[in-house]
Amino acid sequence: MVLIAILAMRPSSASAAEPFRKVLTSASQNLHVELWEMTSRKVTPKSPAAWFVRKVTLHGGKQEGVDLIVVNNGKLEITIVPTRGMGVLKAQMGDVRLGWDAPVKDVVHPQWINLQSRGGLGWLDGFNEWLCRCGLENNGGPGPDKFINNVGDEATMELTLHGKIANLPAQEVEVTVDREPPYRIRVRGRVDEKMFYGPKLELETEISTEPGANSFRIADVITNRGGQEQEFEILYHANFGQPLLEAGATFLAPVERVTPMNERAAKAMATYPEYLGPTAGFIEQVYCLRPLADSAGRTVATLQNRARDRGVSMAYSIRELPYLTLWKNTAAEAEGYVTGIEPGTNFPNHRRIERKLGRVPKLAPGASHRAAIDFEILGSREQVKRVTELIGSIQAGRKPVIDPQPEKKE
Amino acid sequence: MVLIAILAMRPSSASAAEPFRKVLTSASQNLHVELWEMTSRKVTPKSPAAWFVRKVTLHGGKQEGVDLIVVNNGKLEITIVPTRGMGVLKAQMGDVRLGWDAPVKDVVHPQWINLQSRGGLGWLDGFNEWLCRCGLENNGGPGPDKFINNVGDEATMELTLHGKIANLPAQEVEVTVDREPPYRIRVRGRVDEKMFYGPKLELETEISTEPGANSFRIADVITNRGGQEQEFEILYHANFGQPLLEAGATFLAPVERVTPMNERAAKAMATYPEYLGPTAGFIEQVYCLRPLADSAGRTVATLQNRARDRGVSMAYSIRELPYLTLWKNTAAEAEGYVTGIEPGTNFPNHRRIERKLGRVPKLAPGASHRAAIDFEILGSREQVKRVTELIGSIQAGRKPVIDPQPEKKE
Amino acid sequence: MVLIAILAMRPSSASAAEPFRKVLTSASQNLHVELWEMTSRKVTPKSPAAWFVRKVTLHGGKQEGVDLIVVNNGKLEITIVPTRGMGVLKAQMGDVRLGWDAPVKDVVHPQWINLQSRGGLGWLDGFNEWLCRCGLENNGGPGPDKFINNVGDEATMELTLHGKIANLPAQEVEVTVDREPPYRIRVRGRVDEKMFYGPKLELETEISTEPGANSFRIADVITNRGGQEQEFEILYHANFGQPLLEAGATFLAPVERVTPMNERAAKAMATYPEYLGPTAGFIEQVYCLRPLADSAGRTVATLQNRARDRGVSMAYSIRELPYLTLWKNTAAEAEGYVTGIEPGTNFPNHRRIERKLGRVPKLAPGASHRAAIDFEILGSREQVKRVTELIGSIQAGRKPVIDPQPEKKE
Repeated sequence: MVLIAILAMRPSSASAAEPFRKVLTSASQNLHVELWEMTSRKVTPKSPAAWFVRKVTLHGGKQEGVDLIVVNNGKLEITIVPTRGMGVLKAQMGDVRLGWDAPVKDVVHPQWINLQSRGGLGWLDGFNEWLCRCGLENNGGPGPDKFINNVGDEATMELTLHGKIANLPAQEVEVTVDREPPYRIRVRGRVDEKMFYGPKLELETEISTEPGANSFRIADVITNRGGQEQEFEILYHANFGQPLLEAGATFLAPVERVTPMNERAAKAMATYPEYLGPTAGFIEQVYCLRPLADSAGRTVATLQNRARDRGVSMAYSIRELPYLTLWKNTAAEAEGYVTGIEPGTNFPNHRRIERKLGRVPKLAPGASHRAAIDFEILGSREQVKRVTELIGSIQAGRKPVIDPQPEKKE
Repeated sequence: MVLIAILAMRPSSASAAEPFRKVLTSASQNLHVELWEMTSRKVTPKSPAAWFVRKVTLHGGKQEGVDLIVVNNGKLEITIVPTRGMGVLKAQMGDVRLGWDAPVKDVVHPQWINLQSRGGLGWLDGFNEWLCRCGLENNGGPGPDKFINNVGDEATMELTLHGKIANLPAQEVEVTVDREPPYRIRVRGRVDEKMFYGPKLELETEISTEPGANSFRIADVITNRGGQEQEFEILYHANFGQPLLEAGATFLAPVERVTPMNERAAKAMATYPEYLGPTAGFIEQVYCLRPLADSAGRTVATLQNRARDRGVSMAYSIRELPYLTLWKNTAAEAEGYVTGIEPGTNFPNHRRIERKLGRVPKLAPGASHRAAIDFEILGSREQVKRVTELIGSIQAGRKPVIDPQPEKKE
Repeated sequence: MVLIAILAMRPSSASAAEPFRKVLTSASQNLHVELWEMTSRKVTPKSPAAWFVRKVTLHGGKQEGVDLIVVNNGKLEITIVPTRGMGVLKAQMGDVRLGWDAPVKDVVHPQWINLQSRGGLGWLDGFNEWLCRCGLENNGGPGPDKFINNVGDEATMELTLHGKIANLPAQEVEVTVDREPPYRIRVRGRVDEKMFYGPKLELETEISTEPGANSFRIADVITNRGGQEQEFEILYHANFGQPLLEAGATFLAPVERVTPMNERAAKAMATYPEYLGPTAGFIEQVYCLRPLADSAGRTVATLQNRARDRGVSMAYSIRELPYLTLWKNTAAEAEGYVTGIEPGTNFPNHRRIERKLGRVPKLAPGASHRAAIDFEILGSREQVKRVTELIGSIQAGRKPVIDPQPEKKE
């Protein structure tokens, strides 16, 4: 009887120790799961909220073969796109959506994207995610840059808008769920941006949440697998349309300094944190921000709706992501009514400019860069107020420097 | 008994009212049908001719994953390629084929096409359809053109030969069949040429025929889904090789004016409607025609074989497609022995030339351009004669202007 | 009884006459086999060595949909990649591997390759095969070259590094096995590099071995299916890392003349056949060799390990492949520690240079170029010695011309 009791316990105690784990894609194991679902009932029956994780493969036109992973924690739902660099298509909690209504409606398989088309703007043929990464070799605008080629000579290449990572597929994808409280659900993926005679960068991301939470985390590690020092750039292009973005919505973050990206942005400097409704003919305005942080180096940026009763906050370390770009594109809805809140290792100028201005970091062989962002969906006036006060406490009465003119770039 | 009779009638009367409908591809419904077939026996048992529609997916090499839809109306058979912009690979009726023997034998999946290769001529890596559309943002030759970029500045992009539409997949495809005479069979597809900070054009096409008919119709609607006015160009590149094209075959249409595309075409002006047999070293000759039309705006263009007992006619409105391009490429068979009869909104010069000459139309936000072409396969001397006489009646004795020199373009 | 005996014999004698044959991919038959295996037991039960041939389709990330064919002759195993131009990923016999540890770990589907990226170096995004072909329209470095376009005018195109063939899929693939000794196992594939108004080249390859052999053969036929004379270039990029490549390993071949590719290679001329261990910061050195041959036109090139007890030999006709390139890239392991022994119709200079120097052959319409290379894996001191002596006998005491300076190229 004792023996039976022990045996009966063992699977339970073993499973308590090890998280649930499911590999969905693995190039090394020659594996790709088309359809799969797992629920809280099977893995964490005592979970306070009923969660599920679902893997689907999309079909039809440019969507054919695109993988989606839907993580529903019982309160919010996150849709991840392994086929597009582990970007996040959207997140939804109640009536708050993180995402936007892009002109491109499909989740476009990268096979349809030619990054070099339209003078290096081909990236725009697939751009519709709530959050997509820009990098890893470069981000920012297209145009020529120098590089060292195979024979050790300086050669020229055309960089393309926002780099390759958002149009590369994950080589390895897995889901894990802790079997003990708080039952954290994690989707992990690895995306390689590697070539011979070029960068050998690896992105490992973990997108995770807890059952019943109104928040989730994106934690990335970028590693240089090459034998030589390697430049890199990463920018998190988080894009918001309705319902958070509307006339009277506002951006708020503790800031040390704000610089307009160009003359057009400079002219609208006075109202940079405020948003218009959809405006036909609106041309993008971009602001380069240096956030303030608390003593631990953490900052918080928010978008708040007009009524200040819905919003989103992004909390992260400015030691990991020192530069914050605010992209305002309150154009007509058919053109894409959207704003981007974009923490990064740099501003999205062309790499040759960022390099000249000392904002292109390097990784030694084997070295990694880590960055994590905690997203919280704010569903009430009280939650918005709490984050607003936190930002106020970080700002601590310090007056931001408002640059009237763009940075000198060339 | 009465109730039973009513119930028994209802499905029948309902089906009489609503056409048969089958969705084959739908990105919005996450759907892609690999194999499917429907026959007249099941849908229209009283049809005078036994038709079928068949959907297959191709396999092997560059064909892997290409969708084909074969519509056989009992007399003629049309093969549509949803994966290549709803182009038509070929049509066949008895001994008359609409199509040509291209050097590229495979129906090439667009994933293998890089439109920018070979100085913007990458389109030629897949070109082998009987009818493919050139557009929608541009058609014509490759080369630099201006555009307005995301920051509102004028920038330069390299246009590629004949644009993107022939290498974009249909997002939505369905087959419908009317359940009442004349039992029209329709294949509908939507192809999107959309991007952020760029065109947001949609092509909706309906390719349809009737059981037992020797004709079919391609009816297109191009819509600007963007919030701004948008240029577009569409040209229907209908290509004919053997058996219609042969030494002594002729092109015939009512024309107001004929202009050679370049000096080479100018030299052969006198024989522009006549064809040689396969001729090693032949270099293309292109003629720009302005067709005459009847009082309803309709014109007819034909290709007729040497014996004038086989041919094809294309009837359409010059209000929809005012310009007609005749492409003569009677090269060696191994190089591609072919002629193109190409109605369009413009001539296939580079867009900057067409724009300068006032031939690049624009669509207001939400506006559409419609164009339909009725194709008839002429299987007898009488049919050829009838169409020839119709053309004569439209020409009505008016003498075409024959320009000895190409249009001034720069 | 006699009749029975005759009937019983017939299948056997029929099968004796005809080789076993299995089509794995056929665009013309609309066929693609996902998984398949055949063994000696079923086809050649009397084979002295137990062989198998296995077809698999890879999954996960950039490998999704890549075909592999594994030929195991009972002693050595060859892995062929139909999806990547019938290249050979690796070969293994005992502790000798033909192959290298490339930074790109995946067998990359060409849909992820844009040959034009990085200034025409996009080929490097997928380069990791033991043997890949460079060609067929061109090989060598990227950059502009002239061509004749559709209207008969000279136009400019950007050639891309090493051409297209390694990133084109086989249209037709089959396996055959002779049912009689020596039971030769053959994998045949056809790869098309064809377009309208451009090259119409076909590669037909046969990769074959015999059960129990330590050798295999790659025999290629390149045919011009066009109606006009066509330039072509082919170079067999055979790449070796560990275990054959190591500090003290050596290259050996009978050579008439050795020319450094550039100034950097010229400086290391004295030690050109010798190899360093992995060396951080090493930049490639390339040597252009003109091999000597026996009276039948055959030459042999080898790579031998430091202990001279393992090696590989490549025997072929210099009438088919007159130029031999030695690529030394003994960089850090993370960067790719590798050497290439590369017989070809030309040296891998840009095509305009090779053309000027008379090393770009042409094929008349319908004409073919044949080339075969016999690879032998040398697994003992005796085998290495035998080949070394063969090379000595071809060299026959003739002293190679060692050019101190690169060839004049412009």
